[in-house]
Amino acid sequence: SVPPGMLPLCRWPMAWGTAPRQSPGLPLAPCRAFSNNKIMVELDESSGIATMKFKSPPVNSLSLDFLTEFCISLEKLENNRACRGVIITSAIPKIFSSGLDITEMCGKSTEHYAEFWRAVQEMWLRLYGSNMVTVAAVNGSSPAGGCLIALSCDYRIMVENPKFGIGLNEAQLGIVAPFWFKDTFVNVVGHRVAERSLQLGSLHPAPEAHRFGLVDELVPEEKLQEKTGAVMAQWLALPDHARQLTKSMMRKAVLDRLVAHREEDIQNFISFISKDSIQKSLRMYMEMLKKKKG
Amino acid sequence: SVPPGMLPLCRWPMAWGTAPRQSPGLPLAPCRAFSNNKIMVELDESSGIATMKFKSPPVNSLSLDFLTEFCISLEKLENNRACRGVIITSAIPKIFSSGLDITEMCGKSTEHYAEFWRAVQEMWLRLYGSNMVTVAAVNGSSPAGGCLIALSCDYRIMVENPKFGIGLNEAQLGIVAPFWFKDTFVNVVGHRVAERSLQLGSLHPAPEAHRFGLVDELVPEEKLQEKTGAVMAQWLALPDHARQLTKSMMRKAVLDRLVAHREEDIQNFISFISKDSIQKSLRMYMEMLKKKKG
Amino acid sequence: SVPPGMLPLCRWPMAWGTAPRQSPGLPLAPCRAFSNNKIMVELDESSGIATMKFKSPPVNSLSLDFLTEFCISLEKLENNRACRGVIITSAIPKIFSSGLDITEMCGKSTEHYAEFWRAVQEMWLRLYGSNMVTVAAVNGSSPAGGCLIALSCDYRIMVENPKFGIGLNEAQLGIVAPFWFKDTFVNVVGHRVAERSLQLGSLHPAPEAHRFGLVDELVPEEKLQEKTGAVMAQWLALPDHARQLTKSMMRKAVLDRLVAHREEDIQNFISFISKDSIQKSLRMYMEMLKKKKG
Repeated sequence: SVPPGMLPLCRWPMAWGTAPRQSPGLPLAPCRAFSNNKIMVELDESSGIATMKFKSPPVNSLSLDFLTEFCISLEKLENNRACRGVIITSAIPKIFSSGLDITEMCGKSTEHYAEFWRAVQEMWLRLYGSNMVTVAAVNGSSPAGGCLIALSCDYRIMVENPKFGIGLNEAQLGIVAPFWFKDTFVNVVGHRVAERSLQLGSLHPAPEAHRFGLVDELVPEEKLQEKTGAVMAQWLALPDHARQLTKSMMRKAVLDRLVAHREEDIQNFISFISKDSIQKSLRMYMEMLKKKKG
Repeated sequence: SVPPGMLPLCRWPMAWGTAPRQSPGLPLAPCRAFSNNKIMVELDESSGIATMKFKSPPVNSLSLDFLTEFCISLEKLENNRACRGVIITSAIPKIFSSGLDITEMCGKSTEHYAEFWRAVQEMWLRLYGSNMVTVAAVNGSSPAGGCLIALSCDYRIMVENPKFGIGLNEAQLGIVAPFWFKDTFVNVVGHRVAERSLQLGSLHPAPEAHRFGLVDELVPEEKLQEKTGAVMAQWLALPDHARQLTKSMMRKAVLDRLVAHREEDIQNFISFISKDSIQKSLRMYMEMLKKKKG
Repeated sequence: SVPPGMLPLCRWPMAWGTAPRQSPGLPLAPCRAFSNNKIMVELDESSGIATMKFKSPPVNSLSLDFLTEFCISLEKLENNRACRGVIITSAIPKIFSSGLDITEMCGKSTEHYAEFWRAVQEMWLRLYGSNMVTVAAVNGSSPAGGCLIALSCDYRIMVENPKFGIGLNEAQLGIVAPFWFKDTFVNVVGHRVAERSLQLGSLHPAPEAHRFGLVDELVPEEKLQEKTGAVMAQWLALPDHARQLTKSMMRKAVLDRLVAHREEDIQNFISFISKDSIQKSLRMYMEMLKKKKG
């Protein structure tokens, strides 16, 4: 059940649970609650639906620890035959995820940048290539890396609050979304919308995002859970095998492209992020955030 | 006048009519009624418009015989300089075509599967790469292979009856649309709509299909013929040569891809369809259809 | 600041101003009025916004001289650090640009065709790959090559007059838009709309063009300047470097494709345009235009 182009995990220690994948004939693995510091994972074995709920205050930013936990959680579900679908949502009010943790990209060593970027890649390779049905229940703002998580799911439902924004707004910070963020975005909204939105670094209010297909559906907050369940049921009504092969056929070209250029992409990230001008603008951005809070 | 990447027919005996293609200087070939057991072909020499009307009860399923006749008919029209455009429609009420004939894929020999799949490929290569203007007048439901025929035309007009469905719904049967069905679909509706529709195996009611561009136009049944004629006239108003080169430019990449992987695609089909699990689910589906009828 | 895949100019004499590109540390170049026979160029150094206004009566057709002047003007702005964005518009009422000058393609030598086509390529490579923000203020009809100029900008605003048409209507003249016109078009409107529009050689009235995204916005003629300024300000609010890298990421594949096949594309153009049938239909078209005028 490894999607095409999927690389083995390499960062976390074996003891954390990278047992060999189960073959279809083995008994079901029990679903334990595991390493849930930043993400709450619950599996309803009767329906086969798991929920991954981000709970990393203040804004669910994607730190190295968060990404590591995300990958491990997802892999455990992927290997659990009782699990067929995953709902991804947030336990923090008003924010789905704020995207990559800027502190991981500021004033750190080259080795750290490499490790961090590899974890970002790994997260996307696993989620975009997941064999499970993945539904994003976007119950808050979702800029940059947060938007990427939503884009990588099979379906996106967003709370209709126009104060919640979603988009790959990296350009606003003076940085550039990597090519595989772009590829994922183009696959959802098409070339023209992506070109304009990426260049302007737009964070689209939910209704606008819905209008051009960045999210599939808008619902009032109180209907989100019900609607997400209904969508998941619709997708799970299909036989897994045919659906998985179809998903892989649609996403393989874009997954393969990162796999083929993975080390190069890490080097690009390191040399870009190490630039004085980029470090300076990230520091300024963090100052601004601190002042905003304080 | 052979479109790029078009292979010569190889299945049917020479005597059936695979004469060398006419060069532009030769006199017009007379238009005979030929081998019309399953498809009625009529050519109006004054307008240059032919009609291929499927009449293979009960549901115009694409059997090996049907596909063979389709390819021969299309080739004869292609070689006939009096013919510039083809309208494809059905003589059976409520059904355009039900798609590939499942009996050809169930309990047959490897050789039979290979011959059948090659005929499916041939049909698509000829239709998608046709030099003629091709308009689908979709006057009934059009699942799977039936939808592929419509998608391969230059323009799709569908009767606005919401009971008529159209879509590549293979996943519903536990099977997977091959990559060139997918490529054709993506070229019409874009990546996102195709990804969702293929994974869900959706059969879209005509109004929904129209909303996202799977069909270009909806008309009341009694207006279908008139509207189809008007659309054809609009397309035939263009000089053939420039239109043909433009069509080829748009479709060449996708046609070339199948031509380059044709034998591999046949082998994939054989090994997929020969699986016990697939055979079982196809048999169950046929049982269900029989009970529905009886 | 050379976009990827950009070739050095080769046609015009060095004396015309192809000085080596400025490195970022050099002082700003003064903005002179230069070679403005067919295009009026004005730069507002305070805002960093230049305007290129076509003023080549009767219809701003893209002659070899026009294209040469266009490339030189664009290059000078590109090299001028005081300039960050360019507005492209017309000084001729009711016409933006009528496209390639047919007289350059009729009854000329092979060498002339090669020189002309290279200038068309150069214009597109420079404009589509420009590091500056480019906004087309389409204040009149814009067929064929005129449409290509608009499509190559970052944003298109058109006067809402339904008598103004825009489109790659080459097929109407019996000629074929080259693959890179097509690629540019597909990147804006998607594969299906492009396929249909190119085959029919459609010249879309402004409201229709807006409906399927060929232009981004419609405005009353008297609001065009104000709206264009507002859009430009929105795009210039982004940091240049991130925006430029993003633009290059989106457009590189299509730019590289022409660069890789540039000489082949010139040979294709020459052998196509040299055909008796094509020469004949271009002459007929010119006769028709003359009669219309007279």
